[in-house]
Amino acid sequence: MPINANDPKRKTWLEIPSVTDFPIQNIPFGVFLTRDDIVTIGTRIGDYAIDLGALHQLGYFKGIDLTDDIFLQDTLNDFISDGRKTWRLVRDRIADIFDKENPDLRDNKKHRKHILFTIDEVEMQLPVHVGDYTDFYSSKEHATNVGTMFRGKENALMPNWLHIPVGYHGRSSSIIPSEINVRRPWGQTLPPEKSEPIFGPSKLVDFELEMAFITTDANVLGEPIPVNEAEEYIFGLVLLNDWSARDIQKWEYVPLGPFLAKSFASSISPWIVTLDALEPFRVEGPKPEVKPLPYLQSKGKKSYDINLEVYIAPEDGEETKICTSNFKYMYWNMSQQLAHHTINGCNVNSGDMMGSGTISGSTPDSYGSMLELTWRGEKPLKLSDGTERKFINDNDTVVMKAYCQNKNTRIGFGECRTKLLPAIEM
Amino acid sequence: MPINANDPKRKTWLEIPSVTDFPIQNIPFGVFLTRDDIVTIGTRIGDYAIDLGALHQLGYFKGIDLTDDIFLQDTLNDFISDGRKTWRLVRDRIADIFDKENPDLRDNKKHRKHILFTIDEVEMQLPVHVGDYTDFYSSKEHATNVGTMFRGKENALMPNWLHIPVGYHGRSSSIIPSEINVRRPWGQTLPPEKSEPIFGPSKLVDFELEMAFITTDANVLGEPIPVNEAEEYIFGLVLLNDWSARDIQKWEYVPLGPFLAKSFASSISPWIVTLDALEPFRVEGPKPEVKPLPYLQSKGKKSYDINLEVYIAPEDGEETKICTSNFKYMYWNMSQQLAHHTINGCNVNSGDMMGSGTISGSTPDSYGSMLELTWRGEKPLKLSDGTERKFINDNDTVVMKAYCQNKNTRIGFGECRTKLLPAIEM
Repeated sequence: MPINANDPKRKTWLEIPSVTDFPIQNIPFGVFLTRDDIVTIGTRIGDYAIDLGALHQLGYFKGIDLTDDIFLQDTLNDFISDGRKTWRLVRDRIADIFDKENPDLRDNKKHRKHILFTIDEVEMQLPVHVGDYTDFYSSKEHATNVGTMFRGKENALMPNWLHIPVGYHGRSSSIIPSEINVRRPWGQTLPPEKSEPIFGPSKLVDFELEMAFITTDANVLGEPIPVNEAEEYIFGLVLLNDWSARDIQKWEYVPLGPFLAKSFASSISPWIVTLDALEPFRVEGPKPEVKPLPYLQSKGKKSYDINLEVYIAPEDGEETKICTSNFKYMYWNMSQQLAHHTINGCNVNSGDMMGSGTISGSTPDSYGSMLELTWRGEKPLKLSDGTERKFINDNDTVVMKAYCQNKNTRIGFGECRTKLLPAIEM
Repeated sequence: MPINANDPKRKTWLEIPSVTDFPIQNIPFGVFLTRDDIVTIGTRIGDYAIDLGALHQLGYFKGIDLTDDIFLQDTLNDFISDGRKTWRLVRDRIADIFDKENPDLRDNKKHRKHILFTIDEVEMQLPVHVGDYTDFYSSKEHATNVGTMFRGKENALMPNWLHIPVGYHGRSSSIIPSEINVRRPWGQTLPPEKSEPIFGPSKLVDFELEMAFITTDANVLGEPIPVNEAEEYIFGLVLLNDWSARDIQKWEYVPLGPFLAKSFASSISPWIVTLDALEPFRVEGPKPEVKPLPYLQSKGKKSYDINLEVYIAPEDGEETKICTSNFKYMYWNMSQQLAHHTINGCNVNSGDMMGSGTISGSTPDSYGSMLELTWRGEKPLKLSDGTERKFINDNDTVVMKAYCQNKNTRIGFGECRTKLLPAIEM
């Protein structure tokens, strides 16, 4: 009988916490450095990191068409290139290997020693080499909030916004995994009271709560991807903190868009949760306010119900939750984004990353950035230690969390956790 | 005595045309497919393509610290990572090997057979894998012209333009070498007389005359590159045709900048001409109209006198020259661009590509795009066959050429030649 990795009844022989982002129904993919300083591709169940390279060498993927070194790599790009059929076979096989009833690995102590690490024994790496990083701007609430602040209420939402999943190219080189510190950037800004720009560390460093999807090789140059085939080319999702320096952004972004305000760092969570694992959490997105052009008309449930949270922790202090949002608030879904991105023939490769844009909801506690939460600093947030924040302070840690939950299963993304260090001395 | 590859007196034992972009003083680097279907790194002298992989295997680079397979690769990225000292040693050695007075290869028929190809025997490839592609907007004339058309004369040059080398991230995946055809893109546009956007092939496909520089690994995340050290990290330059769909651009570009209007293709010339080869052509750039902030104050001659030309050839027709410009017209130089790009700590890697932006001069025949040359189509250009062009027609070939010339030497870039095919059927 074919295995279905999503079976909510499956239990694992691994000892795992009763509440975890990584039950045996999740099976995300990532890259880690082991205690022996070897880089390998792995998955996670509970608080175990599982070495897929070792599993493969020991023959556990027999019968699946995989090259010998597919998991002995420092990125997932080649595995992602293998395509959806292979991803499914591998994920289903992993579910089977760790199924409570399967003795093969469970009762093989020697194999277990090679394969299992505790999560604090390993160091998570970037899961993919990102060839091109695109960031969309697909939350209507966020676009309206920012537009209101930057351009006034009348020009908040641009005339194209309801017709186009607006997006722009981001910087790939500065994408970093969770747990890597970020430096407060230097840059040019035009303070409100001045007529000439000044140079100094940004005073308005902000996070942006986003999710991003990772693609496989989707098309050749010149050939668009139809909107209702787009999900075939999406491997999975991660959390994305699209760090932003609002003062630099305001001065630089007209007419060619954000540049240095964003390119100093973009942090992602290290485990890619597959679209397959998210299948039980499909939902309808917001109803279109304007009928999209045919190439953007997606059919069926193309949104996902993913709870999103942001916390700030001051140095040595505890986390305060400052935002609760949801991926399903996005006006434009991933299928529409990918169809739009390729409608001009632009080619998409394995490991390309596409950010959602900041995901804000309709209530003030669901806004996905400090810019919106504090309304440009006019309404500071209070943390649990009594201090206030308008934007992110030096040595603050920003933590993003994401999870899906139904009555049977919780599928989570873990965390995207980043500390903001002070600007370097110049 | 150390060799100096730039010595204008050096002659080669190869038979080459009396006027060529590729005298022995040039020695550019590229990647090609040989008649035996092998990909190799090479250089070019006259109309000979020279296999550096074979030269290295035969021992001609003895004494230079190079890995065995450094030239047996399908991109120059690793060689560029070796750094300026190595680039110079290799270029100087090549000058020596092909020097008229040097019998080593000249008189070794067997070796020559392995190493030399005529240029029409090989197929040029992309010279580098471009990790990140950034496009600047550094010609004041171009920014003023476009600004005038898109936003009116009063808002033509944005307040930030004289303070910042404005730039934005481009799409890496759709960078293609010369001789690869481009498809007219489909997309959304808002025709002037309509209130709702329509979908169809772009009606206003344009070229942009640019040059682009290729970097080496320049810095780690978080550490800026000082403006007067920036050239150390520039390997060389290519011609760049930054294809643009003006109608798509106009509808999509506010507020996050150009996206699908550009990402359908960017064509580059296949030979990277090193900054070292351009040394004799250093010139002062335009005098700053506003004193730049200290991190952008470059010293000395940081511009280069490179003549630029654009031609259009209709199908089966002859080329008509439609534009004559010069790289030295750029208001912001490459050192300023790279210093600005990294001032926020953004990391730059080997193979990253940075476009100049369209290079327009001050006279109407020096404008670097059809948008400007025909002033939005209001003043069509006449080709030598009597036909007129407002923008680029299906099956037109756009040819860009670039060369430096002084009384001793001509250092050229060859061509960037691209045919525009009709839109695909949908």
